[in-house]
Amino acid sequence: MSDNGFVVGVDIGGTKTTVALLDERDGILCERVEPTSRADFDESQQGSQRILNQVISLINKVCDVSGIALSDVSGIGNGVAGTIDFKSGTVIFSPNLPFRNFGFKDAMYQHFKIPIFLDNDANVAVWGEKCFGAGRNASEIVGVTIGTGIGGGLIINDKIYRGAVGCAAEIGHMIIDRNGPRCGCGNYGCFEAMAAGSAIAKKARAVIAKKPDALILKMAGGNIDKVNGESLVLAAAEGDELALGVLREIGEIIGVAFTSLVNIFNPEVIIVGGGVAETGDLILNFAEDIVRNYAIKPNSEIVKIVKAELGNKAGFMGAASLIRKEIESYND
Amino acid sequence: MSDNGFVVGVDIGGTKTTVALLDERDGILCERVEPTSRADFDESQQGSQRILNQVISLINKVCDVSGIALSDVSGIGNGVAGTIDFKSGTVIFSPNLPFRNFGFKDAMYQHFKIPIFLDNDANVAVWGEKCFGAGRNASEIVGVTIGTGIGGGLIINDKIYRGAVGCAAEIGHMIIDRNGPRCGCGNYGCFEAMAAGSAIAKKARAVIAKKPDALILKMAGGNIDKVNGESLVLAAAEGDELALGVLREIGEIIGVAFTSLVNIFNPEVIIVGGGVAETGDLILNFAEDIVRNYAIKPNSEIVKIVKAELGNKAGFMGAASLIRKEIESYND
Repeated sequence: MSDNGFVVGVDIGGTKTTVALLDERDGILCERVEPTSRADFDESQQGSQRILNQVISLINKVCDVSGIALSDVSGIGNGVAGTIDFKSGTVIFSPNLPFRNFGFKDAMYQHFKIPIFLDNDANVAVWGEKCFGAGRNASEIVGVTIGTGIGGGLIINDKIYRGAVGCAAEIGHMIIDRNGPRCGCGNYGCFEAMAAGSAIAKKARAVIAKKPDALILKMAGGNIDKVNGESLVLAAAEGDELALGVLREIGEIIGVAFTSLVNIFNPEVIIVGGGVAETGDLILNFAEDIVRNYAIKPNSEIVKIVKAELGNKAGFMGAASLIRKEIESYND
Repeated sequence: MSDNGFVVGVDIGGTKTTVALLDERDGILCERVEPTSRADFDESQQGSQRILNQVISLINKVCDVSGIALSDVSGIGNGVAGTIDFKSGTVIFSPNLPFRNFGFKDAMYQHFKIPIFLDNDANVAVWGEKCFGAGRNASEIVGVTIGTGIGGGLIINDKIYRGAVGCAAEIGHMIIDRNGPRCGCGNYGCFEAMAAGSAIAKKARAVIAKKPDALILKMAGGNIDKVNGESLVLAAAEGDELALGVLREIGEIIGVAFTSLVNIFNPEVIIVGGGVAETGDLILNFAEDIVRNYAIKPNSEIVKIVKAELGNKAGFMGAASLIRKEIESYND
């Protein structure tokens, strides 16, 4: 049990924003999710301020609903989908949000005048899994979120590893096939370009193009634009060889990336979150086979590959835990 | 100035073994190098014991020559080319040495009865560069040695990162082309299989096969078996386009690997040692171009790519520093 009372956890993603109020035992008193405010997306301070206002409003709501006064909240922890300058509390850049060198931590402090914590969304999520989910009892953790993009978070010696300026763990931009497809980052053959959501859909569509009566397409209601990981998993569940083939290919690519990570980090556990983890065990089983057979020993033998346990709660739970930790450090 | 007097640093490589006695200011009093004792290589305790005997004999020699009694030596730090179980002080496996689950630290302690430190050779070398060479003042360092193979050492938050069981930093077995050539580890397209010494020589020979009057071959005295990185550099210095092409290709592969490392670690510095670093600036300049253009910002802007400064001294200097640090921790 923590002795610094109520804290708020905030998780700002490109699509939705979640805010939750936690009691002193890290129990969730109230949790609110909204689409992230970006109706007229502009890369300006106004766009950033609009998101900040939305978060402020959500924080007020979760307190109101729980009957807790803002003055009883000890601090606010935030995870933001973007590149963070950790020391200054600035969001340097976000591919899906308007933040551009936005002094997030300072702006939030100016409003609430209580301790504020800010970090990258992948970092707070892996911390959440370490404290409350699939990473309990582990000190060396690689967190990988495979969804629209691929994000990473690293726990090294029981701490979040941020690198020289806070921009480490860009696991999605590890190159696994230098002759591979172009990535959004400008490079070729990044893990993200090979195995994230759009790469999966692209591979499935390429299969359908050759075989228009494929079961994969039926599973997407006959609409090729709706073909995605889920259509593949549904078709594979019916024993469809084409779908299984695509899932195996994706699983093997993920396995290649995990093999490199296991060789580099010798982690106790790789925690996999995002859409891929939610599509069942098939893809991850293919990936695990590659790791067990191709990573070096003893690393390949000791690593566990597990799914994230907290789903969308990992981000705000981790952010809340991190502001709590920071407040405790003031009191030491 | 350290207050724990004389220490010995030992660096056991597949080819040669270096032992040095250092005074309390880390000055080298005496340094001895010998080919590692493996005349009749056997994967047995006898083979391991033979190497241990050689090291013991070298330690006695450097003390004798310096006029220092063994009883005045506070501890012995060792770097061994192999997979180390750090906690138990065991060499689990070494590709080029007879050690197989050999209790190195214990065996050495039984002989000398003074504090013994044991770690992987790449780890002690990067630590040496951090304390005395190209990594001074940096907290986040990736060390890469590109020679016959490719080894790695990681400094994270000012400490050697060893992973869950001490086998992290196998940077040579990061996969950068999943359709690439087979690696000694059994995998395909590892950094080592693409850019270490034998890969370089192979690429050069492939070029010569198409153009038997190539300058590269002349630089190797007309003997294709002697073609190596040096022949390429010599031919490139004469402006030979074929040689420049091979060096560019190798440099680009190294650049791809470094780009991944910069994205994952956000390091302050990558320190490059081994044969490639000794062939001049050409290869590393090609590599650096790739990093500056393709790694994500701000990581790509802040990282320095530099050559190791200590050469063959990095290993024993680092090992000596680490046993000194361990002794100091006893006294805290």
